[in-house]
Amino acid sequence: MEVTRGGFVESFHRGSLAIVDAGGALHTALGDIERPVFPRSAVKVMQALPLVASGAAARLGLTDAELAIACASHNGEPAHAATAAGMLAKAGLDATALECGGHWPMWDVAGRALAATGAQPGALHNNCSGKHAGFACLGCLMATAEGRDARAFLAGYVRPDHPLMREVTAALQAATGCNLAQAPVGTDGCAIPTFAIPLRQLAHGFARIATGSGLSPAHAAAAARLRRAVAAAPFMVAGTGRFDTRVMEALGERLFCKVGAEGVYGAALPELGLGVALKMDDGNNARAAEVVMAAVAAALLPRAAPLQPAQATLLAELAAPTLRNWNGTEVGGLRGAEALRQALTVAA
Amino acid sequence: MEVTRGGFVESFHRGSLAIVDAGGALHTALGDIERPVFPRSAVKVMQALPLVASGAAARLGLTDAELAIACASHNGEPAHAATAAGMLAKAGLDATALECGGHWPMWDVAGRALAATGAQPGALHNNCSGKHAGFACLGCLMATAEGRDARAFLAGYVRPDHPLMREVTAALQAATGCNLAQAPVGTDGCAIPTFAIPLRQLAHGFARIATGSGLSPAHAAAAARLRRAVAAAPFMVAGTGRFDTRVMEALGERLFCKVGAEGVYGAALPELGLGVALKMDDGNNARAAEVVMAAVAAALLPRAAPLQPAQATLLAELAAPTLRNWNGTEVGGLRGAEALRQALTVAA
Repeated sequence: MEVTRGGFVESFHRGSLAIVDAGGALHTALGDIERPVFPRSAVKVMQALPLVASGAAARLGLTDAELAIACASHNGEPAHAATAAGMLAKAGLDATALECGGHWPMWDVAGRALAATGAQPGALHNNCSGKHAGFACLGCLMATAEGRDARAFLAGYVRPDHPLMREVTAALQAATGCNLAQAPVGTDGCAIPTFAIPLRQLAHGFARIATGSGLSPAHAAAAARLRRAVAAAPFMVAGTGRFDTRVMEALGERLFCKVGAEGVYGAALPELGLGVALKMDDGNNARAAEVVMAAVAAALLPRAAPLQPAQATLLAELAAPTLRNWNGTEVGGLRGAEALRQALTVAA
Repeated sequence: MEVTRGGFVESFHRGSLAIVDAGGALHTALGDIERPVFPRSAVKVMQALPLVASGAAARLGLTDAELAIACASHNGEPAHAATAAGMLAKAGLDATALECGGHWPMWDVAGRALAATGAQPGALHNNCSGKHAGFACLGCLMATAEGRDARAFLAGYVRPDHPLMREVTAALQAATGCNLAQAPVGTDGCAIPTFAIPLRQLAHGFARIATGSGLSPAHAAAAARLRRAVAAAPFMVAGTGRFDTRVMEALGERLFCKVGAEGVYGAALPELGLGVALKMDDGNNARAAEVVMAAVAAALLPRAAPLQPAQATLLAELAAPTLRNWNGTEVGGLRGAEALRQALTVAA
């Protein structure tokens, strides 16, 4: 990715990209796709598989919006906090069950709006609160099955050795085919473990999410259900002005994509049976990983079916954004580097 | 720069670094130091030379705080906005004279505090408002000399061909020795032109700021005055929690350093007669350019005189920060890459 100002390249972002089909065959590779990377929040859809596959989501009557926020890195807008709170209420819990920590809403406008009310942020405003609420819903079912109190069962659920987190990790392992017991492990921003997985295997995991192929029947059905839920409620997966929300509002079920911290993206393209995983070396999301993701979608989706004009316009805009200064004057822009353009020309 | 999580390198930042003496001799070079880079706000001290050299600062009785904010990229805290407003008032002007545009305070805490009062941000909250107020003070003197009305004279001052901006650009050219008429030019965030200058020449410019050597007597005196002012009022150059403020509060006149957008840093080390310029390829400031700057200061300053324990502790902390998640748990850290460590070992 090149960042230009006055037609001159001011900064640039390097990264790697893997596109893989459900059989594991490599479709496109750019950079080092064998180096393990922490997928961070990009794999929330995989971590949410047990919530649906276990029957917990059906039992609690979780809605599209609630399943979408279980896969989300959201802005902390009022509707996000309320939706996560609603999930917890269905499980007979509240925000005190969450172990993700609190922070000011990720979207500064939402943060200032909250501040203007005199309120302080809490765990519900954490961008991961929906994922954690989903964990709590799953934990509630697991506790009931063991005849245990849900609150007592959930204590310490963010730890790798907790039965709930073992279930979540097993789903991630099943989807990616990566032996996570051998993988480098770190602690994510929201306190759960994150495992380093090569981009090739991450992309393979997203191809499985796209197709269900290679997943257990329960996980395959859960993947389809979660993709449908996010397509039906894309606001919940991110929020106002956010890339994932805008793209999925426009494309519906044609594309499932999810940002992860540190410049990671994962995407499932069901029509093509492909999975995408990318990582920017420097960890930049907003102007590197997102822009590459838009370029990938713009290049690949027309292979399956033409884009509607509004869809094509949106992806073109997101793949080559204009940069403006505080006066609103255009000062530069973002564009794919030559290597990316070439790889995507071949891929398309 | 390496970003680690769980002991594993999650992301990394590449860049270039030049350290040059006042005679232009290269002391340390890492990466490509001949490629032109937009210095952005790193050169505000050079752009402020005419404010002092012209006599405008003395005539208006500008204080240390006011001269410091003329070199600043500030947080938009109340004291910053008030100081910029005070400079304008001394020149018989107000915020409507500023052409930098407005934005919410750079520091999110200040932004939320402003939002909580029900107010909207204006040009005084722009991180460059002090620089622009300094321009306005200079323009006021220039207008008076021509017997013109200051407001009328200032109209369009951000344009490259305005007499005021030509004066500012001439000072930048004199300090860096770079022929700016031939340089790639872009528009900065605050609407003024920014010229791409090789790191080697930028570093040479900072060596001249450090020593006065190679500058006109008026510019040399202005450089010393501005360095003293920033050392006396380091809060004004950045603000609460900011790198430049913390470092200069601790080190006083031993180090003048200034961040620029897109991962640029410039610094003057008067004791050693050295100038420093660095640019991170990906434009990252907070966890790349700053961390390298701290490592450079920690390596070089002890060559002139020992650091006090508190100074050494601060620089060590800033050169290898700990990363924590929303629960406050340590999850990783930042550290210089091997190439940087080796270069600085030789430099020290």
